[in-house]
Amino acid sequence: MIIDGHSHVCLPVEKHIHLMDKAGVDKTVLFYTSIHPETASNFADVKKEMQRLKENVAGDTNLSTKARIQGLKEQKDAISLYPSRFIGFGSIPGSLTDFERNEYIEKEVIGNGFVGLGEFTLPSGFIQTLRPIFKSSANFGNLPLWIHAFHPLTLPDIKQISQFAKEFPSVPVIIGHLGGSNWLETVDLVKETPNLYLDISAYFSTFVLKIIINELPLKCIFGVDMPYGDLQLSLDAVRKLSNSNDVTKAVLGENIAVLLNL
Amino acid sequence: MIIDGHSHVCLPVEKHIHLMDKAGVDKTVLFYTSIHPETASNFADVKKEMQRLKENVAGDTNLSTKARIQGLKEQKDAISLYPSRFIGFGSIPGSLTDFERNEYIEKEVIGNGFVGLGEFTLPSGFIQTLRPIFKSSANFGNLPLWIHAFHPLTLPDIKQISQFAKEFPSVPVIIGHLGGSNWLETVDLVKETPNLYLDISAYFSTFVLKIIINELPLKCIFGVDMPYGDLQLSLDAVRKLSNSNDVTKAVLGENIAVLLNL
Repeated sequence: MIIDGHSHVCLPVEKHIHLMDKAGVDKTVLFYTSIHPETASNFADVKKEMQRLKENVAGDTNLSTKARIQGLKEQKDAISLYPSRFIGFGSIPGSLTDFERNEYIEKEVIGNGFVGLGEFTLPSGFIQTLRPIFKSSANFGNLPLWIHAFHPLTLPDIKQISQFAKEFPSVPVIIGHLGGSNWLETVDLVKETPNLYLDISAYFSTFVLKIIINELPLKCIFGVDMPYGDLQLSLDAVRKLSNSNDVTKAVLGENIAVLLNL
Repeated sequence: MIIDGHSHVCLPVEKHIHLMDKAGVDKTVLFYTSIHPETASNFADVKKEMQRLKENVAGDTNLSTKARIQGLKEQKDAISLYPSRFIGFGSIPGSLTDFERNEYIEKEVIGNGFVGLGEFTLPSGFIQTLRPIFKSSANFGNLPLWIHAFHPLTLPDIKQISQFAKEFPSVPVIIGHLGGSNWLETVDLVKETPNLYLDISAYFSTFVLKIIINELPLKCIFGVDMPYGDLQLSLDAVRKLSNSNDVTKAVLGENIAVLLNL
């Protein structure tokens, strides 16, 4: 089974399914988004969407409630339309009390059949705000957490994620985008921490990708990060760079299937 | 003509030529390196080389003279062996006086038939040290400069590069790796500055790559950054993402051919 372990809702949803069909991808773990650069028709519109993305990734919390509700609706609608193809991770507002968060997870995550939490995009220096999320995950049967770890996160941020992972050893944590420029140190942290995993989307060096998937074949999870990555090109890269068919199969689906009990 | 506008010396050189032949690449603009992760046989060795790379990219100048001389010899040897396939850019030690630099360029760059200067890898905040290099370039017939602009460079660093480009409008400047996480603002700087160009190696989002090559088809220069990038996968990406054959041809060779009078 081939699984894209990380992509966002892309519009129209039918086009996303068509691309999955064409590439032979069985399932996609689908994440919320309020940004749709894939629907922009000119550079100015793309720029506007990407500027909003940048603000989001930098941890801007001024996202309008309306945009958030719309994004969540799109995610739920996509999964309802294609329940055998999409699996949901639940996005959580950052400003909730413990009580509100647990109520939110019960209703919006568990209630919708979602199987994990994320993507968490935080500014550098704010990883400690994830501690209550680790606690909530443990409360709800250890929902895997998915944390963006490319720019603007730094090595100290990623180290703090690994410390939380050690403190909550039952909570699986997927470090997004290989840890970005800090991939070398991130690999060591993932090696020594059983519940840490690596999402391989947004690789900027195929040499690095090759090293990592073959060094940590059971810890790497294929992800495309659509609309930012290309499904077929990402598949081609893993297939070309894997040293064996076992590595390819583990990275392209088996690892996330085990993690999510698929 | 298909030209890889940016790769480093890879050992053995014959293997590099073989990969170029297989992918149908006519020429490669070849850059110096003292680091050879492609020859490492296990993860520990790769790690050692990548750690050294990281120090180099961060502007560490403690590189031993021996390693530097060896790297320069490898570059000259590769070009001598395959003069119709490799074109050299000259690396310049950072600590030279104006007089020494001009002497060095005359002997080691012009004297070896090299056609540009770089790759310049500087720590963030040190772009002003490139000003004398711009002057030297102008003195020697406007040798194109190639500047690493991924992490650790920041937007203010890239802005300073564009200011120098405006101050020296006859000096072509290639901004490496699309400006990294600052690609959106970098595109605007490249648009408004005629002598600024974008190297497209180390893209971390094919969506971003698609936007940029189609928005600035005459300013983008194909680069693989071997050994860090994969030649065939990089070619596949440009071909898939170009909106027209004209864009493909411009990015994959015509632009750099014009710039270097090939």
